[in-house]
Amino acid sequence: MGSFNELKSFRKLEELAKTPIDLTEAGVLSPKRIEEMTAEGVGLKLFYGTQRVTPDVLAALSEMATEQNVISKMQAMQAGHVINRIEGYDSENRAVLHTAMRDFFDHRNEDNVAVKATKLAYDELEKLKLFLEEVDKQGFTDVIQIGIGGSELGPKAIYLALEAYQKEGRSVHFLSNVDPDDAASILHKLDLNKTLVVVVSKSGTTLETLTNEALIKERFLEKGLSPVNHFIAVTGKGSPMDNPEEYRSSFYIWDYIGGRYSVTSMVGAVSIAFAVGMEKFLEFLRGASAMDKLALNEDPHKNLPLLAALIGIWNRNFLNLPTCAIIPYSQAMSRFPAHLQQCDMESNGKGIDKNGNFVEFMTGPIIWGEIGTNGQHSFYQLIHQGKTTVPVEFIGFKETQLQEDLPFKGTISQEKLLSNLFAQSIGLATGQKNDNPNKFFPGNRPNSILFAEKCSPYSLGAILSYYENKVAFQGFIWNINSFDQEGVQLGKILANQMIELFAKRRKGEEIDSKEFPLGQAYLNQISS
Amino acid sequence: MGSFNELKSFRKLEELAKTPIDLTEAGVLSPKRIEEMTAEGVGLKLFYGTQRVTPDVLAALSEMATEQNVISKMQAMQAGHVINRIEGYDSENRAVLHTAMRDFFDHRNEDNVAVKATKLAYDELEKLKLFLEEVDKQGFTDVIQIGIGGSELGPKAIYLALEAYQKEGRSVHFLSNVDPDDAASILHKLDLNKTLVVVVSKSGTTLETLTNEALIKERFLEKGLSPVNHFIAVTGKGSPMDNPEEYRSSFYIWDYIGGRYSVTSMVGAVSIAFAVGMEKFLEFLRGASAMDKLALNEDPHKNLPLLAALIGIWNRNFLNLPTCAIIPYSQAMSRFPAHLQQCDMESNGKGIDKNGNFVEFMTGPIIWGEIGTNGQHSFYQLIHQGKTTVPVEFIGFKETQLQEDLPFKGTISQEKLLSNLFAQSIGLATGQKNDNPNKFFPGNRPNSILFAEKCSPYSLGAILSYYENKVAFQGFIWNINSFDQEGVQLGKILANQMIELFAKRRKGEEIDSKEFPLGQAYLNQISS
Repeated sequence: MGSFNELKSFRKLEELAKTPIDLTEAGVLSPKRIEEMTAEGVGLKLFYGTQRVTPDVLAALSEMATEQNVISKMQAMQAGHVINRIEGYDSENRAVLHTAMRDFFDHRNEDNVAVKATKLAYDELEKLKLFLEEVDKQGFTDVIQIGIGGSELGPKAIYLALEAYQKEGRSVHFLSNVDPDDAASILHKLDLNKTLVVVVSKSGTTLETLTNEALIKERFLEKGLSPVNHFIAVTGKGSPMDNPEEYRSSFYIWDYIGGRYSVTSMVGAVSIAFAVGMEKFLEFLRGASAMDKLALNEDPHKNLPLLAALIGIWNRNFLNLPTCAIIPYSQAMSRFPAHLQQCDMESNGKGIDKNGNFVEFMTGPIIWGEIGTNGQHSFYQLIHQGKTTVPVEFIGFKETQLQEDLPFKGTISQEKLLSNLFAQSIGLATGQKNDNPNKFFPGNRPNSILFAEKCSPYSLGAILSYYENKVAFQGFIWNINSFDQEGVQLGKILANQMIELFAKRRKGEEIDSKEFPLGQAYLNQISS
Repeated sequence: MGSFNELKSFRKLEELAKTPIDLTEAGVLSPKRIEEMTAEGVGLKLFYGTQRVTPDVLAALSEMATEQNVISKMQAMQAGHVINRIEGYDSENRAVLHTAMRDFFDHRNEDNVAVKATKLAYDELEKLKLFLEEVDKQGFTDVIQIGIGGSELGPKAIYLALEAYQKEGRSVHFLSNVDPDDAASILHKLDLNKTLVVVVSKSGTTLETLTNEALIKERFLEKGLSPVNHFIAVTGKGSPMDNPEEYRSSFYIWDYIGGRYSVTSMVGAVSIAFAVGMEKFLEFLRGASAMDKLALNEDPHKNLPLLAALIGIWNRNFLNLPTCAIIPYSQAMSRFPAHLQQCDMESNGKGIDKNGNFVEFMTGPIIWGEIGTNGQHSFYQLIHQGKTTVPVEFIGFKETQLQEDLPFKGTISQEKLLSNLFAQSIGLATGQKNDNPNKFFPGNRPNSILFAEKCSPYSLGAILSYYENKVAFQGFIWNINSFDQEGVQLGKILANQMIELFAKRRKGEEIDSKEFPLGQAYLNQISS
């Protein structure tokens, strides 16, 4: 297994990238191409005829997948091998088992480590079921979920995406930021008598989370309410938060569940199942699990996340495109790009390979995006005519969730939404010639569409897992560790030094001139 | 006035960019540097010591500003000259006068065109004042603002940023997407008796907006309510929407107000003033206007938006960084990055200069971002250790809006928030050496902090205008037209062709095989 940029397929792709297919040429993007370049699985279709790939490129990418043994690596991941590590250096040395959190359906993994993790996960689901029955009887209406990063982004994205399926009168509010205005604005709206607080921190020590918990607890006490009747912990077994004197229940997560992969664990389960009910949450898990199984298929044309990963590598490393926009044409998916931003950038925004070598090729792109059609009235100007080419991954659904629609001038809104989606896909690829340079569209903007019948719990689970597995495959190909996040440590250390300075100032203590002088410089600037 | 990449200063900067200052070297980023590289104006401070600039670089950038006559161009813009044009080609040929929408305070512009625009804008404000007095008496509690692009992003970003200043019991809901689930989820929450609907479209013909208006109107009629008592138009004088039989009031905008620059016009005024009251809205305008005046200062060290523009050019064209992240450490600013994404990318995502020549240098970067500290638990991994360097523009405030805070472990939340902000700024610049490559931070990640006392109406106006003027300055330097958006037209044309196909299918009409075959290909794929 060689370094990514020394692979045989790498040379081939480099060669092919010198003359990528020109989608603006008449007849190149044809109905036949759109039809043929459609992959299908778990109820999803991936239209990729508008990517700048040819059968030759796809064959070389497929060879790359083989050279890098991506399917064995995926098997190893799902089996619970210790793949979160850097050889020869101090590192996390953990398994990566988010797929076990939902392996309750067909073709279950039979490796011991995975079986054990699945069993533990199932126990938590059983606990949750009983807990929710109790909560139902007691008439709770609201949940505040306190957590940051993966403890907020994924759960919130999925919660919002499933709002249409919510049980009547239920709401979840997410509190993440240490900005005190965030907490205050949530508290203003709620009847705390009927509110549960789900505090999520694997380590039980996350600064923002504990700060917000303290702030919310104070408000419960002010109202004469006993926090232990309202507060629930989602944490590692034995963490400082695993404490029945402080929490009404504890639900467990494990060190093999990374924050950005934790939506299908208890991190997402408690609040999402509170909102939509256990049955719909299980449908969500079922969709995710089905996609995990598909990710084990050797054939990239059938293995949707692998196909997407390979095309992404083509765009990033061979067409040299630094970013990737995720644009769902669905209001419900409004926070999904933010979740993927974390999932992808925290996983693959790395500079060393699994042996600790600094790499000389590009790794994970910058992921950004908003929903359509809104983006069309915003940044699409740059996407169509700007100097930086942006690959776009569209997401679309045939039907609406709420089925409240109205014909206006001959079509319903959903048809207008889809018309815009397909029009953009085509226009970005083909461009348009014009003698007026301002009306000239260069085209060859690569894009694809991931398409499902409806934004349902099942398809949403499948889409989530599609992206989780896409990210993992890209990491396997680059041979980097997609499962740690050492890059967030430096900021934490310096922030603590800065907090020390503020604390001393608050106490009126003298600050030594040698103590974090750059921090002091800022402190002086904002005090003057 | 030469082409950007033929300027004398361009050559100088190219030369300087070969050996940019190394902020990771011991002692380079010093307290003195932080102190000296602070610019100040209109209550804002800009800390840019953590950018990779030196006095030489700044001098060459300043020369570039002179070579491109940016101050005369800014004067011409604010005076109402016709600057939105491409020489020799069919183009919009308009003035650009958003600064006139708020020029009611000190040092007013005395050019005739600007004076006239300001007078018209003031008349609308007077109308709005009377209108809001009426509305106050009638007990309206909610506004639905229907609009997309600039008619949503800016107003919503500012509305959310000022939620803390809201009048009791008032809410504004923004409806933009043609996705019917969007409208349905807003309608479920409201008492339409007490709801006003502000429909915003300059042309009076925006597809998404008219579709949503029809949908909402239907609901009013179902409840037996007369839309003319509830619906307000914000539109161009004489547009199809300027019709007293359909709307209770019309407020005007003009063709010299681009959507992405329209927050301080009636596009933002009606809803924001409904929420926070006229007085606070005027404070917001006052801040914006003060920054417009500062943007006329020849000295880049005093002219904050010019300084920011120049540093952005350095990052984009000389350090070759394709994106720019905007990260406010403030929950209230949650949608501000999305607004700037439009403002910047739609303005400067261009491929031709003002004479219609295709340019051979990079123009506007990809703008993206989320609020801090949240981002720290998400994409900061890539920012610190990834392969693509991301310049970051932080925004911070000394005090909270709501002043509800709590000491926890020796500091209040706001101090923790600021500690994180300053820590990130320092850590990104200096990096950190380590024998473990996984704990090595390369540093030299350029960033700056825009800092204000508090996220108040006044400072928010100043920050908005800072960015509007920054974007304009960059366009002046590249010599591109930042004020049109031809790049969104192709998608509209193709979407209409696609809608035609859907309409025919709905009516059961036969579709000719030559009619938009690529659209038909997609239609077949999703019908099967």
